[in-house]
Amino acid sequence: MKRIVFTGIGALFLASAATADPLPSWADTATKSAIIEFVEQVTDPASDRYVAPANRIATFDNDGTLWAEQPLYFQLIYALDRLREKADADPSILTSDILRAGAEGDIDTIAAGGAEALVEILAVSHAGMTTEDFQADVLDWLETARHPSTGKRYDDMVYQPMLELLRYLRDEEFRTWIVSGGGVHFIRAFAAETYGIPTEQVIGTTGPTEYVDSEVRKLPGIDFVDDKAGKPVGIDSRIGKRPILVGGNSDGDFEMLEYASGGDGPSLGIIVHHTDAAREFAYDREGHVGVLNRGLDEGPDRGWIIVDMATDWRRVWPE
Amino acid sequence: MKRIVFTGIGALFLASAATADPLPSWADTATKSAIIEFVEQVTDPASDRYVAPANRIATFDNDGTLWAEQPLYFQLIYALDRLREKADADPSILTSDILRAGAEGDIDTIAAGGAEALVEILAVSHAGMTTEDFQADVLDWLETARHPSTGKRYDDMVYQPMLELLRYLRDEEFRTWIVSGGGVHFIRAFAAETYGIPTEQVIGTTGPTEYVDSEVRKLPGIDFVDDKAGKPVGIDSRIGKRPILVGGNSDGDFEMLEYASGGDGPSLGIIVHHTDAAREFAYDREGHVGVLNRGLDEGPDRGWIIVDMATDWRRVWPE
Repeated sequence: MKRIVFTGIGALFLASAATADPLPSWADTATKSAIIEFVEQVTDPASDRYVAPANRIATFDNDGTLWAEQPLYFQLIYALDRLREKADADPSILTSDILRAGAEGDIDTIAAGGAEALVEILAVSHAGMTTEDFQADVLDWLETARHPSTGKRYDDMVYQPMLELLRYLRDEEFRTWIVSGGGVHFIRAFAAETYGIPTEQVIGTTGPTEYVDSEVRKLPGIDFVDDKAGKPVGIDSRIGKRPILVGGNSDGDFEMLEYASGGDGPSLGIIVHHTDAAREFAYDREGHVGVLNRGLDEGPDRGWIIVDMATDWRRVWPE
Repeated sequence: MKRIVFTGIGALFLASAATADPLPSWADTATKSAIIEFVEQVTDPASDRYVAPANRIATFDNDGTLWAEQPLYFQLIYALDRLREKADADPSILTSDILRAGAEGDIDTIAAGGAEALVEILAVSHAGMTTEDFQADVLDWLETARHPSTGKRYDDMVYQPMLELLRYLRDEEFRTWIVSGGGVHFIRAFAAETYGIPTEQVIGTTGPTEYVDSEVRKLPGIDFVDDKAGKPVGIDSRIGKRPILVGGNSDGDFEMLEYASGGDGPSLGIIVHHTDAAREFAYDREGHVGVLNRGLDEGPDRGWIIVDMATDWRRVWPE
């Protein structure tokens, strides 16, 4: 009986929520209408664009799409914080120019070093930990670290409109996934609490691990880069279905958007365009984070929605 | 309103099912009692062994645990069938002893060649296909292929008691995953229809793929072997949580069982022991498929349940 009562209340709540605006932090623009129209079509059994719940897969990039990514990917800030702490205790670990630059916070050198520099730093800051301890350490860091310009917790620098979109999609029987160039264990540490996305719906860049004595431990290096063409590869490998709704913000998401559009059925691509220097950050075609050229040039012709943060979002951050 | 009515009926059905025997094809033995007792404890909020639904992860091996695996892994039979067809059309593809043995159905040579032989055959039989076409081809094969001794469709050679266990666990808010040494795309082709397990809850051995022109294509080779210590590695990489219930049948599942037992909370390990030559096949410590030594020797001391197919199962196959 308990189960029936509980389910009944859940159903009433859903029915009531459905009549309210599912995206209150989105301004009443064509962008919001297009998103709602798409969701209503694919969930309407009478529509010729109907998609069965089993195939309602939505995938989202994380950095710059669900949370901020300036002045640097937050995971890199975490790795540099931990590297600096380790170097303070034992300076002899700084065996290369990249590691010394990292410990000194010389971001330009790190950025110029690209993925290889990041791998080198992660190898020193993280390798050898169990994946469980690593995730606990990320949570510890989130408790104390603060963003240099906003002073916020990093996990408070998530986009309220995107949180509403994730919730709206789940209410409409979508499964919401993160498909990020960031490290899978880093994102998992906070994804359930922050986004309502369980660990098993996070795809990210991975390093090799080994199983010994009932524990899985991180090894140095990277064995799968979940970026650009790696995103559809990761989606195929982990989900096994084409997403029908994809959110991204940079050219690292282009192939994931293209993959969704290349299926037989309806699909929607959404690109978050960072146009709001006052409330967040304004950047697109240049820089070393979140570079967006192809999406802006080709997106509209491909039918993808370009979200103008400054005008399409009533607010950026959660209260 | 429609949603409320539908949910209400669903809840009534669940409540009614809960009073019936959830495992009717399991004989009333200690094995069945132990499984039900575990599930009742971890789903009872008043129990000190309670596990929240988010952490109710159950993982199952496929070959020999959910469906049969004699006289050969069914995926190998599929690959050999397709190799033979290709060789009939163009014998010049048989460029090695292994490939010639495969086309001739010389199983001993293939088995002696181990994983490398399999990779070589798969490279000829499957590489270059899109993963979507590959899955469609597996379904085509299942339509016509028949098992050499039972004459059944291969996807009818699933274990009815295990189908009931999967359903029982899902009714109790577990997520049921396959974690198999078999190829992930092979299993996905039929997992939803056969087991009620969606593609995104299948972990398996994978080969490299590439994304080109909106399609993901298989490349030759294998880049992740989801067997032995690879099973916890795959679980950590894809699920990100320790399972609390694990089913297996061979020493390839030992580490996955050990991993579940190594968590802080309650866990249950289940080993399907093939003891029933009359209804299925009888094998354990020897052979080239499903070898089980460590599980039999150490399993009982570790608290794992050894399922005696001959006495614990009222029936083996679905009607």
